[in-house]
Amino acid sequence: MTPRDAYAALSDHGRRISALEGAATILSWDQETMMPPRGGAQRAESRGALAAVLQDLRTDPRIADWIAEAGRADDWPADIAADLRDADRAYTRAARLPAGLAEALARETASAHQVWAEARAARDFPRFVPALTRVLALRREEAAAVAAPGQTPYDALLEEFEPGARVEDLIPVFARLRAGLTETLDRIRGAAVRPPKLTGAFPESAQMALARDLAGDCGYDWSAGRLDRAVHPFSSGSGGDVRITTRVDPSDPTECIFATLHETGHALYEQGIAPALLGRPSGRWASMGVHESQSRFWENHIGRSEAFAPWLLHRMSIAFGEIGVKKAGQLHAAVNRVERGFIRTAADEAQYDLHILMRFDLERALLSGDLPPEDLEVAWADRFEADFGRRPRHAAEGCLQDVHWSEGMIGYFPTYTLGNLNAAALAAAMRRDLPDLDAALSAGDLSAPLDWMRDRVHRHGRVMNAPELMAQACGGPVDETPLLAHLHAKFGAIYDF
Amino acid sequence: MTPRDAYAALSDHGRRISALEGAATILSWDQETMMPPRGGAQRAESRGALAAVLQDLRTDPRIADWIAEAGRADDWPADIAADLRDADRAYTRAARLPAGLAEALARETASAHQVWAEARAARDFPRFVPALTRVLALRREEAAAVAAPGQTPYDALLEEFEPGARVEDLIPVFARLRAGLTETLDRIRGAAVRPPKLTGAFPESAQMALARDLAGDCGYDWSAGRLDRAVHPFSSGSGGDVRITTRVDPSDPTECIFATLHETGHALYEQGIAPALLGRPSGRWASMGVHESQSRFWENHIGRSEAFAPWLLHRMSIAFGEIGVKKAGQLHAAVNRVERGFIRTAADEAQYDLHILMRFDLERALLSGDLPPEDLEVAWADRFEADFGRRPRHAAEGCLQDVHWSEGMIGYFPTYTLGNLNAAALAAAMRRDLPDLDAALSAGDLSAPLDWMRDRVHRHGRVMNAPELMAQACGGPVDETPLLAHLHAKFGAIYDF
Repeated sequence: MTPRDAYAALSDHGRRISALEGAATILSWDQETMMPPRGGAQRAESRGALAAVLQDLRTDPRIADWIAEAGRADDWPADIAADLRDADRAYTRAARLPAGLAEALARETASAHQVWAEARAARDFPRFVPALTRVLALRREEAAAVAAPGQTPYDALLEEFEPGARVEDLIPVFARLRAGLTETLDRIRGAAVRPPKLTGAFPESAQMALARDLAGDCGYDWSAGRLDRAVHPFSSGSGGDVRITTRVDPSDPTECIFATLHETGHALYEQGIAPALLGRPSGRWASMGVHESQSRFWENHIGRSEAFAPWLLHRMSIAFGEIGVKKAGQLHAAVNRVERGFIRTAADEAQYDLHILMRFDLERALLSGDLPPEDLEVAWADRFEADFGRRPRHAAEGCLQDVHWSEGMIGYFPTYTLGNLNAAALAAAMRRDLPDLDAALSAGDLSAPLDWMRDRVHRHGRVMNAPELMAQACGGPVDETPLLAHLHAKFGAIYDF
Repeated sequence: MTPRDAYAALSDHGRRISALEGAATILSWDQETMMPPRGGAQRAESRGALAAVLQDLRTDPRIADWIAEAGRADDWPADIAADLRDADRAYTRAARLPAGLAEALARETASAHQVWAEARAARDFPRFVPALTRVLALRREEAAAVAAPGQTPYDALLEEFEPGARVEDLIPVFARLRAGLTETLDRIRGAAVRPPKLTGAFPESAQMALARDLAGDCGYDWSAGRLDRAVHPFSSGSGGDVRITTRVDPSDPTECIFATLHETGHALYEQGIAPALLGRPSGRWASMGVHESQSRFWENHIGRSEAFAPWLLHRMSIAFGEIGVKKAGQLHAAVNRVERGFIRTAADEAQYDLHILMRFDLERALLSGDLPPEDLEVAWADRFEADFGRRPRHAAEGCLQDVHWSEGMIGYFPTYTLGNLNAAALAAAMRRDLPDLDAALSAGDLSAPLDWMRDRVHRHGRVMNAPELMAQACGGPVDETPLLAHLHAKFGAIYDF
């Protein structure tokens, strides 16, 4: 078999995997948006059967042979080299997973999820402890099995979402970020300014129409997607079928607006990957931190920017009539209002990453065993008090608020903050390249930022790894400086410090 | 391995197949209702990959061993005996299919479908002939491969939709049916009566609300299904997730009403199969002729019945206000109006089966080679003229009107007429059991007919074969008598003969 034939065989196999992953994506989307209540049991069977087929395909031992054979050539173009690199990474990881572990994890996390929901409703953390303990043990087992030589267990789990990232590189950046965030938050809390609240009538149909208009303004391709409602908004799919969802709170239109912009950002990324890469390992998102940079860019650096406020006011006035503010500046202040709260998903830009950084520290301690699960509730409250100045009153506004750990997702949280770091660095680089950006935003013309993102980020898929991709897009490595500068400028202007 | 262990292993394998078939069903439903325009290419990849996985699972040689081993016990209850019988039938058929033939058929029919659509739009039958010729050759090859000893090629294809049916049994029933239909049609055409047409405004949202009300009236379980719009209405799914679709013609509400009742009938069948059978070979529909009996029962024997007309008038008046008729009798005549037409899908009850019977004869001649594909257009026109008294003006209202042959579906058409024969036989048996049926229908109470169908048909799944199932439900074998009696009574009352 020639290297060329080996690559062709690997590609055919990979396309089959990708096609079945696409099927699984539709089953998930349908479950969250369309499935009738009694469809759950059969859906679990279908998803489980598909997962088993995928596991078999991903661990097919011929993959190792094809990669080895293809690797005998050393003149592959960058995209094919990236295919081989990522196929190797995925195969090695899948092949290292002990038989039965994936199934045990699926079973335990399904059960833990149920227990978590009950414990959260009852504000009863001890009820969740045994389930959390079992899930952590399985994830530890998985980390030990899939870790590359010398890789720490946490890095082995992080690898799934952020290929190549290492905790030791994140820690110093996150430490400086935490210090800067705390300082900004102190200034906001010390300010006398009180931004206005929006008031008015926000009918659901008007919110959904506005959501469609805003997604279209961003350049979302409706011929390759659709918008529906979901309890927890998400985007899903790739290439020619990238769907977004949003939610509607009749008393507060900002929920729908910014959820829509967030999911549109994710979707624009998937819609923008070069068609020639689709269905290939190099045709996927570079990392979750890059994916999240796209959602946060459109949500915060466009949607919540001062420059975009006149257009947003125009769109909202058409949709709702009176909204309680008359000037773009007031709207800008209203959608960036900072309030005390315990809940991550409701947090503003100034506080969001403080939520993430504490989860990052706590989940590393949980995984290593330094923090026994039964001590989590108190450890959470202590850390929350240190960063936010008060303690949760119960576990539902403390360590039971997020679904992630019940699902065994350890190593995911830091990608939210990486997304915010990346988004701010991309926005800063974009502003250097596009001096007339603000005027275009004010008029609702978002083509220039989309073109810039398409060229610098979207089209490249996974041909470069995340740090390489960000460095070429931003002109250097990403650190905490652009995000802190962005937050200081935005909140300094609103809160007058 | 004991017979019990063998059955357990066979069941596990079968559940996996059933779960993946469920996934494929969702992909198809989504494609017809939700998928954005540019999603087609990826969807074809996903469906193709899933079909390949299913083909591998269905031809797993262990299946033959499990069936043989389980068959050593002879005291299985009826449902497990049915599982073994149907698993054997499905495996034998799948294993006989030559490697590559399924793929060649998928490729040729995809291409033929495209050519058919172009040829129909251009009313140009010769353009379709080469594609039809290739599809027929492949289906002949398939029939030769899968036929049981002594089974004719056409029966081998019919077997897929109507297990155990034989053309030689159908021919005499169909011949008597054709004679009776022609006689009834002659009487209708000779009548002086002209039933009224509906007039009024029929907004789309009102039609969809009415569709929901009517499906609910029939007993459709909304917790296990949903209603959407589709260009060509269909129902899909099983057990706890059985979805229906309908279409809306703003100028004619009957399209939506009867398409909804038709698909609701299919869905009630799937929702009514005994939960203990689901996911097993015995938990599927008995035959397409039984499935179609359910759709046609609710569409025609309930929806278009004289007894139901008062309730339908009540529902339509709420939905639309004035509809051009004031009395239930007028509505009953209006929804059963017989008109000259060329198109099967628009045909009324009096003419529908004449359309089917000519297709049954023509497709058998095409498959056997007695009718060369290039002669189809003229043969169609000759037969149409013999039965309906005039010739199509072009191929789009003649032999290019139906999609079936372009998709290689030979042996499907007769199941439509079997459905009508079964529906009439079931309705006659039900009326013997439920003397107060008409009074309940007039008041919109459809619980008694649903309970009767649940008990006699739905819950049994495939534990009995179709003729056995119909015989126990109807008190004897089904022939043309109940259908002809029903049509004679209905149209005699409306057209006064």
